[in-house]
Amino acid sequence: MSGAPMDHVVVGEVPPAPPPPLAAVGADRRRTPAEEARTLVASHRVCSLATLAEDGVPWASVVTYGSMQCGSPVLYVSTLAEHGRNLEREPRGSIVVAEDAGGGDPLDSARVTLAGRFRRPEGDGGAAREAHLAAFPTAAAYAGFGDFSFWVLSVERVRWVGGYGRMDSVDAAGYLAAAPDPTAGAAVHAAAHLNEDHSDALVAMAIALGGYPDATDARCVRIDRYGIDLRVGTPRGTAPARVPFAAPVAAPDGLRAATVELARRAREAQASL
Amino acid sequence: MSGAPMDHVVVGEVPPAPPPPLAAVGADRRRTPAEEARTLVASHRVCSLATLAEDGVPWASVVTYGSMQCGSPVLYVSTLAEHGRNLEREPRGSIVVAEDAGGGDPLDSARVTLAGRFRRPEGDGGAAREAHLAAFPTAAAYAGFGDFSFWVLSVERVRWVGGYGRMDSVDAAGYLAAAPDPTAGAAVHAAAHLNEDHSDALVAMAIALGGYPDATDARCVRIDRYGIDLRVGTPRGTAPARVPFAAPVAAPDGLRAATVELARRAREAQASL
Repeated sequence: MSGAPMDHVVVGEVPPAPPPPLAAVGADRRRTPAEEARTLVASHRVCSLATLAEDGVPWASVVTYGSMQCGSPVLYVSTLAEHGRNLEREPRGSIVVAEDAGGGDPLDSARVTLAGRFRRPEGDGGAAREAHLAAFPTAAAYAGFGDFSFWVLSVERVRWVGGYGRMDSVDAAGYLAAAPDPTAGAAVHAAAHLNEDHSDALVAMAIALGGYPDATDARCVRIDRYGIDLRVGTPRGTAPARVPFAAPVAAPDGLRAATVELARRAREAQASL
Repeated sequence: MSGAPMDHVVVGEVPPAPPPPLAAVGADRRRTPAEEARTLVASHRVCSLATLAEDGVPWASVVTYGSMQCGSPVLYVSTLAEHGRNLEREPRGSIVVAEDAGGGDPLDSARVTLAGRFRRPEGDGGAAREAHLAAFPTAAAYAGFGDFSFWVLSVERVRWVGGYGRMDSVDAAGYLAAAPDPTAGAAVHAAAHLNEDHSDALVAMAIALGGYPDATDARCVRIDRYGIDLRVGTPRGTAPARVPFAAPVAAPDGLRAATVELARRAREAQASL
């Protein structure tokens, strides 16, 4: 962070804090910043690329990528494009992968920058080539274009921003060692389903497991392999709460069973209150 | 382009050309590359930014922006973020604005890179501040954070890519002189509406005005202030066609009237065939 201040320099008023929990909550577990970064990269295939233009100006462009098992993204770009020529001259660069904010606040949605050095894989591209073509099978058609090359990013530095107040830096070893969340592809749909059809279960979770026995309302803000983030309404105001699953979900289609078990546990605990 | 090849180096097979028109078509008009660039920038408010990190690596990140009347984007970033510190040290950089590809081919969707030099507006930010806050009214809340600054990009170089085979470079004067398409905000909805409810009118346009008297099917691929891009099905294969409006649409809500007039003209011409 090289001498940067560690928090905003507040000149004006500070917003009020949310109401605190009224009951103790169990041990929490969240995706680590490295897991967040791996998950974002693994669940997308379009990113923005920063390379260095010939005149020394950092050059932003859009590229497609595939993800290798190790977490390295693989581009397939042409020297007809400026970014392709830039990489030939200066292989250091970065990509940023951003989640779709939909109609929400773009500053409160997740993005991750991976910086390092791009290198060409040897021979026909091997695993790098396979990773790109798994994401973009149609890219095989460009194999006939001699101006296209695969480029693998050797990740040296990672900066993840999950939204307001959720951010961290990750080193290369931490990034490469982490696993992407296998449930990421099902999460948006699962959250919408919970909010549409199971708001009673979400309130029970907030009351019995989330530390808010005075909850009158609860919405699923986010769901991941470790648990559910809630926004809880109480007579004291609105607060965030977290309810963890009994065990991390390991399969892409495992969110449903884990959520059903969580709702059952919440109702049992609520009944014994 | 500094010695770059002018087209793909084709090693493999070339795909077959689409069937040519069978009738002469009227004078076409399309958005210029400068207008495409201005339109993309004016109709979005989130972009990726390329700055130069302290270690010399080009750094990609996500930022919000507002658009000034002149076409210059205005960022509002914190020195707590790496890109904010990068701009303090090296004000040269670029942004890329990309249209949402939805479920479509991301390489066939539009994006534009604006490169140049970021400068801080004087005083309280004036018109630059107003442009950013018009796009993000909530950003006014950060005015209490002393680590935030407005940065205006003085555009020096523009690279627009509309999709496969649609791309061009634009100089600063051309970019600044062009106007954004006022109908851009309504275009996606208008295209969907035409395809859902007026496919007969689209076929009539392709037959009578688009040069494809053997059209059996037509879909609106894109609509803009100057006309409609069609994908036309014929017994000879599928081809792109363009049907221009009688005059450029000047108002954000003017696509409907222009399309109705075009459909009427197509039916009249078809009746006299």
